[in-house]
Amino acid sequence: MRIAIIGIGLIGGSMALTLRERKFAGTIIGVDANPEHAEQALEMGLVDEVTNWHEATDRSDIIIVATPIDVTEQIVPGLLLRCRHQVVMDVGSTKKNLCATISNSPQRSRFVATHPMWGTEFSGPQSAISGAFDEKATVICDQDQSAPDALNLIEQLYQVLGMNIIYMSAEEHDVHVAYISHISHITSFALANTVLEKEKEENTIFELASGGFESTVRLAKSNPSMWIPILMQNKENILDVLNEHIAQLRKFKACLEKENYTYLSELINRANEISRILK
Amino acid sequence: MRIAIIGIGLIGGSMALTLRERKFAGTIIGVDANPEHAEQALEMGLVDEVTNWHEATDRSDIIIVATPIDVTEQIVPGLLLRCRHQVVMDVGSTKKNLCATISNSPQRSRFVATHPMWGTEFSGPQSAISGAFDEKATVICDQDQSAPDALNLIEQLYQVLGMNIIYMSAEEHDVHVAYISHISHITSFALANTVLEKEKEENTIFELASGGFESTVRLAKSNPSMWIPILMQNKENILDVLNEHIAQLRKFKACLEKENYTYLSELINRANEISRILK
Repeated sequence: MRIAIIGIGLIGGSMALTLRERKFAGTIIGVDANPEHAEQALEMGLVDEVTNWHEATDRSDIIIVATPIDVTEQIVPGLLLRCRHQVVMDVGSTKKNLCATISNSPQRSRFVATHPMWGTEFSGPQSAISGAFDEKATVICDQDQSAPDALNLIEQLYQVLGMNIIYMSAEEHDVHVAYISHISHITSFALANTVLEKEKEENTIFELASGGFESTVRLAKSNPSMWIPILMQNKENILDVLNEHIAQLRKFKACLEKENYTYLSELINRANEISRILK
Repeated sequence: MRIAIIGIGLIGGSMALTLRERKFAGTIIGVDANPEHAEQALEMGLVDEVTNWHEATDRSDIIIVATPIDVTEQIVPGLLLRCRHQVVMDVGSTKKNLCATISNSPQRSRFVATHPMWGTEFSGPQSAISGAFDEKATVICDQDQSAPDALNLIEQLYQVLGMNIIYMSAEEHDVHVAYISHISHITSFALANTVLEKEKEENTIFELASGGFESTVRLAKSNPSMWIPILMQNKENILDVLNEHIAQLRKFKACLEKENYTYLSELINRANEISRILK
């Protein structure tokens, strides 16, 4: 199988490593707007060659678009027009806008909209990890819009990556990821800014920071060029969750101000119920 | 060295395991208000015997108080009055109230106020981990109030546990931990409640929850009997941080509402600076 990967960063690079090791990919052709990343990917053996998107598309069976979502939305319509037997898939964190953009493409059925639910706070080819997707979930959206052979091929690809496939509409997807992923990033960015604003003794943060702080603030290292388009595209769902989150924080604030132990205890007991859902 | 541990849970149990393995502790005597925990600790070999606090104090060189901070504050004054050569240390997450409570004790100098900066969201003797404190920071507060021999003994104990000791006043300690630890717990509790409130399809949370969500919401599993007293005792510092945090979240909200990419980019770039401090 010949695979083109457009955007050889954390996700594209990790897919390249795993698909090659598991012999799903024969040749991997890389495309990257950043010449340094392209060169690194080549040196690291993530891809066999680097070229432009026209040639990569023409010579491949699957084109994986793993760019920031604003770039994905710009390039997918053109990629689709170039497809004959090829299948194009994306890996973006929002789906509604992209699926709306291509809904009138005569080649819509060559596209499969996907979102593998894995990532770290790092980016670039050097952050790629083999086997990263094992036992994680991936979403395929609006699968009835894809041709059966195209859908089938991408399902195979995700099975090789070791992922559990969940199907839902693009709209449902964007609502759920606002809760499961996007709000965590906003709280983490805001927490980092809170600490940087209030705690002037940076050395003390460094010395005292323990596991709890590191795990809640880890996502604050995430890349703005990836996250700004995501937050903007999904802003309505995110605002809905963000308003609820601020309301929840205000309840904690009220408990402390009024020394209301009973209510604080109720809030924490309720929060503990998350254990029921997350192991 | 004979060591008494009052409260044989996550912290007390982990200290017992490590101090015994590293041969700092000869005999370890356990005290626990929960008979099930006491029995588990005995069965697991965390402690050699279980008794009441009077006897444990009389027969030990060091008494480690590892109970929730409200209990610690109740029992430390009585423990101190019983000390001759013994040293009492606590491991609580707030320090100002406790140090004020015992400031007039005729035996104040037998006490060393400490806070090892390590924990997990789990509790009870079965959550104890050997070597858990290695290369973490521990705080010793108001060290000039402790007798030189008492301070020296507890410094040795923390060196055996592999911890880096930081010295500060009880008041400074409580300000810093509000930023570094307590606010992370509140945001995590509030995030869990947000998701539980808004996302009615629990199965979808379960299936989609990825690394980012799990790491930000992990602390929401924390035990209320430990955390309610901490949040209440440190409420003034925490309210100060919480107000700033809500203000920071409102900035993200305003960016999304007004589609202000420039400001959003500034906020995220600022948050990224946390990488400078945390590795």
